[in-house]
Formats: sequence, structure tokens, C-alpha cells
Amino acid sequence: MSKLKETLSGITPVREDLSGETQRRLDNLTKPQGSLGRLEELAKKVVVITGNEKPVLTNKVIFTMAGDHGVAEEGVSLFPSEVTPQMVYNFVAGGAGINVLARHVGVRVVVVDMGVAADLEPHPEIVDKKVGYGTKNMVKEPAMSREEAIKALCAGIEVFEEELKKGIDIVGTGDMGIANTTASSAIVACITGAEVEKVTGRGTGITDEAWQNKVRAIKKALALNRPDPRDPVDVLAKVGGFEIGGLAGVILAAANHRVPVIIDGFISGAAALIATEIEPKVKDYLIAAHCSVEIGHKITLEKMGLRPLLDLDLRLGEGTGAALGMSIVEAGCKILNEMATFESAGVSEAADE
Amino acid sequence: MSKLKETLSGITPVREDLSGETQRRLDNLTKPQGSLGRLEELAKKVVVITGNEKPVLTNKVIFTMAGDHGVAEEGVSLFPSEVTPQMVYNFVAGGAGINVLARHVGVRVVVVDMGVAADLEPHPEIVDKKVGYGTKNMVKEPAMSREEAIKALCAGIEVFEEELKKGIDIVGTGDMGIANTTASSAIVACITGAEVEKVTGRGTGITDEAWQNKVRAIKKALALNRPDPRDPVDVLAKVGGFEIGGLAGVILAAANHRVPVIIDGFISGAAALIATEIEPKVKDYLIAAHCSVEIGHKITLEKMGLRPLLDLDLRLGEGTGAALGMSIVEAGCKILNEMATFESAGVSEAADE
Repeated sequence: MSKLKETLSGITPVREDLSGETQRRLDNLTKPQGSLGRLEELAKKVVVITGNEKPVLTNKVIFTMAGDHGVAEEGVSLFPSEVTPQMVYNFVAGGAGINVLARHVGVRVVVVDMGVAADLEPHPEIVDKKVGYGTKNMVKEPAMSREEAIKALCAGIEVFEEELKKGIDIVGTGDMGIANTTASSAIVACITGAEVEKVTGRGTGITDEAWQNKVRAIKKALALNRPDPRDPVDVLAKVGGFEIGGLAGVILAAANHRVPVIIDGFISGAAALIATEIEPKVKDYLIAAHCSVEIGHKITLEKMGLRPLLDLDLRLGEGTGAALGMSIVEAGCKILNEMATFESAGVSEAADE
Repeated sequence: MSKLKETLSGITPVREDLSGETQRRLDNLTKPQGSLGRLEELAKKVVVITGNEKPVLTNKVIFTMAGDHGVAEEGVSLFPSEVTPQMVYNFVAGGAGINVLARHVGVRVVVVDMGVAADLEPHPEIVDKKVGYGTKNMVKEPAMSREEAIKALCAGIEVFEEELKKGIDIVGTGDMGIANTTASSAIVACITGAEVEKVTGRGTGITDEAWQNKVRAIKKALALNRPDPRDPVDVLAKVGGFEIGGLAGVILAAANHRVPVIIDGFISGAAALIATEIEPKVKDYLIAAHCSVEIGHKITLEKMGLRPLLDLDLRLGEGTGAALGMSIVEAGCKILNEMATFESAGVSEAADE
């Protein structure tokens, strides 16, 4: 508990005072003012988050956190829960989507067992932060206890701080967990007050009938457990997941250490919602990578005031969208640091209007 | 002329027959079917364009073509025409936006003088394909002769084929030319039939008054020269630009050599419109990188049936959006080539529905 309190007390507002000077520097580069649009905004965002006026994103890290969900037994996913540990092995073998995209953009992937429902074979690249063997079935009881929710948040903070020793200039979130869109929809419905139907998608690609069943399960879980929307830790405990708690912890830790966070898809968005409800200042540390196909993602991003960078119809998770988005953020920083100025390049400036 | 005819006669339909098998391979990778959305579509697109079932985009090339515009004397831009040659020197010195982004994603930039209104100092990295010292002022006379328009198209084909000897796996288009949004708006208005006001933007960032003046200039040029919308070479000649003709030539050459083309912003879009009106089969070889702030760009992309990958409020040109988009296309190809299959990774497949 003290780890969480300590982290929260360390989160300060971003350095908005650096924004004006950064924009002046951007306006001095050899291009019409503002013509690099959101790349310029991203550069400014990284400056005000880090407090570094020449940020270089050498150490790009994505935490891909895995956990199982008791609610999977309700038949909410196309895939069986055994896929969660299988995919963890795939992550450390380098064969998953996140591995391919992380290699493409030069990102380190840290794979964390937050609560897979199986004993994983020990592996040097699997970080063991297991809070439990999957959550309970939220249709029948709370997914986890309040103590477990706090443990998951603290585990996320710890894993971030352990990795920080190797350097983290920007961090991305990623998830793996059969049935975790179900938990995420429940979280988003509870916190935003949106109808369950409006925030529940097809996950791995379920049929109409299975979707109706998924909606029913979420409604039942919310009615039974009555999570308090004003108490995000209660929401995480009643209808969340271990990997979602872990990701929320990573996000809180990143804000505490002034590291920009790039949010992946819907599950990461639900984790960010938990984190920003715990501490609203966290919003200014977030960048949304993409707009997921999962319909609840848009509502989640709007609630946090975030506009996604990419619109690629992704719905895989794992941090795949975050990896691509990170490369765009890095591009923005390089524009700020590497472009010639009008003076250095001997280019005439615009006429005064 | 024969170079152009030869190129056009070589353009064949893309290999749609490879699409089904490629999707089957994508469906065998360790992810829910279709969950990597447009990355999967991009991989398929590169396969059907190149005919290569395992495309690797090692040689990524952007042609940044420069030309001046007589219409600049109407006061349609914030910047004086002297900026065009100054920016060409900036390109070869590596200080421009395109250089920064090209380095970021591993792209070779080929800088071409298609018609700068100055004698450039010889430089090993400036390809000299000068058709003239800037176009004529289209408000007073045709921008160029039909012969010059064909010469510009052929120069684009030549420069592509010269560079092809070093290898081109994917090509991007980029432009530099003070007042070239004015020419592009005229082209787009003529070919799509859209109102001039609907396809004319702020270019480098002009005021309301300057925008009204720009609209008037375009209307006057169209009324005076009466370009024939069914004859794209006539449109290029009457209201186009040398760099726009060069880019259209690059696009035609790429389609002839089965190389995917990534289109940058509004000026590149106008060039692509010329190319696709000359030979409609070219559309299937195109990928739109981003949706520019220039309002005419959206209409241009819709006319060609293209959906942009990025929405970053860019309006610089030079190929900046194309560079970022190319990295996304490459990511799609890597997904196809590098991800593990369910079988190879020992991951359970989805239940049959």
C-alpha cells in the first residue's frame, strides 16, 4: 500500500511552462509554421512531460502483461484460456505480433505474468508478478479482493521501476488475457456510465449470439458486484483483471517518473481509465496510439481527452498499436532536435502578414 | 513520347489471384483472424502489386521533386519563390523535415530539380531534370506547353528507372515548390469537378484575404485556359507544374515496374490524380500515407478510392507523410513474413463457430 501512496504523492503536473519556448523553437525550423501538425504537438508533449527540452527516445519499452479471467468460463471468447500461457511463451520466443512490431521500431518488450491461470515454466524473460491463478468469475463473485487489486497496482509500479534501471525514455502498455475485453467493457461501462451495449465489442471475433451472451455476462457482473464508479480500486477489484491492474500501476509509475506513456488498445485504455481516476494528473502523461475496432475504446479515449494517432483497425492488443505509435512520437522528437533552422540553412522566412 | 507510351503499355492489373492465399497465411498466424486490420490489408496489397508472396521492403525510396510556379507572382503563398532553391540545398544538406523522417524510417531521398526557377549549383545529390525555369503564370497563359508536360512525365519515368538500378521495393512521392498548392487545387477542381473553394486550402498558412485571392487566381486560370478534364495531359499543361508532372511520371513508372507507391499529401495527390486519369489501372498500385490539412486532399483521395493511413494534421509535403506511411506498410509486410503460426508456436486455435 505504501508503494502506491508513495507513487501517487510523487505525481506532479507536467511542465506546461516549457510549451511556449518549444513552439518557438519548432517555428524556427525550415517549414511553414505548424505544418508538421501533430508531430509538433507530440514533441511539445514529450518536452512538458519529461522536462527535457531535447528529448531523445533511445529506450523505448513496452510492458506486455498477461492474466487470466474467470469470466472466460461464460463463453465470452472464441479462444480457450490455455491460449494465455501459450501466448506468453510465444512472446518470449519472439513470434507474436508485438515482437515483430517491436523489432521493427526498436522497442524492448518486457513480458510479465500478472496472473496467468497456470504455472509457467521459469524463463529469464518472463517477469513473475503473479497475483493469482486468474481472477474469479465476476458473474458469480468479485474478480478479486481489494487487497489483490492493490497488489496488482503495486506489482505494476515495481516492474516499471525495476526496468527503469536499464533506462526508459517512453513506455507503452500491452496486454494478453483471454476474456479481457469483457473485463475492460465492464470497467468502462462502470466508470463512464455508458450503456454496456455501447462499450462491448466482438473481442477475438465472436458471433452475434456470443456478443449478446457477453453483454448479459457484463450486466450480471455489474449488478451483482455493484462496483463504486467513484472508487477506481473497487472497480478494478470487482470487475477488472490482474494484467489491467498491473498496467494501471505501470502508468502511475511512469507519471511519477515523468516518462511519457503510450496507450495501446481497449484493455490498455481501461487500465489508463483506472489510473486517471485514481490520479487525474496522469492524463497529461498519456498519448493514445490508435483507435481500436473495439467500440468501447473511443468512449474511453474521449473520457480521458485523448485523440489517437493511428486508425488501422487494430484489435489485437499485446502493445502492437503502442509500438507503431511510439515510432511516430519518436519522429516528432527528432523533428524538434534534428531539423535545420531558417538561419542555419539560409532559407528565407515567411512574409509578415 | 515513346517512353511514356512504352510505360503505359507495360502497366498490367495487380495480381488479385494472390490475395486469397495471402489471407489464408495471415489467418494462420498467432492472432485472432483479421485482428491486425489494415496492417494485414497492406501486406496483401504489397503481395498483389509486386507478385512477391514474401515481400521485403529493403529499398525504400522517396523522390522529392522541386519546381517553381509562375502563379507565385499573384501572391498566393506566404513565402517568396527563392525558397524553392534554398530548400533544395536544405534537402541535400539533410536539414529538412523529409530528411529527418527519412532517416528515422530508413528511406533514401532522391532530390530532383524538375523546374526550379534558378540555376542550381551542381551537386552530386541533385538530379537535374529541369524542364524549364518555373512554369508560366497560369492566370495569364498556360503553365506550360503540352510538349513540356510530356517531357515532365518522361523525366519522372527516367529518374525512377535510373534509381531502380540501385533497387526500389517501395516508392514514395514528395514535392517542393512555392505556390504548388495553387496548381494542385486547379488540377483537382478541373478533374473532379469540385468547386474551387472546396479544394483550396491555406497552403503555407495564408490569411482569409489571401485565400480569397488564391481562389480568384485559380478560377481565373481555369476560365482562361479551359483545361479539358478528360485529357489529363492537357490539365497538367494548362494549370499544373513541372514537379507535379515528374511525380505523375514516377507513379506511372512504378506501376509499370510493379512497385507499390505511397502518396504523400495534396500535391502528390494531384500528381496521382493525373497518373490515374492517364491510366486507371494505376489506382491499385497506390497507398495513401495520410490525410493532409489541405481540404482538397480528401476529395482527391476519395476520387481514387484511397483511405489514408495517418491523420497527423500534416501540410508540409516533401514526402514527410509518405516516409511515416512507408514504415507502416513495412510493418504490415513484416507481420506476414515474421510472425509465428499457431502450429509453429504451439498455440491453440479458435473454436469453430
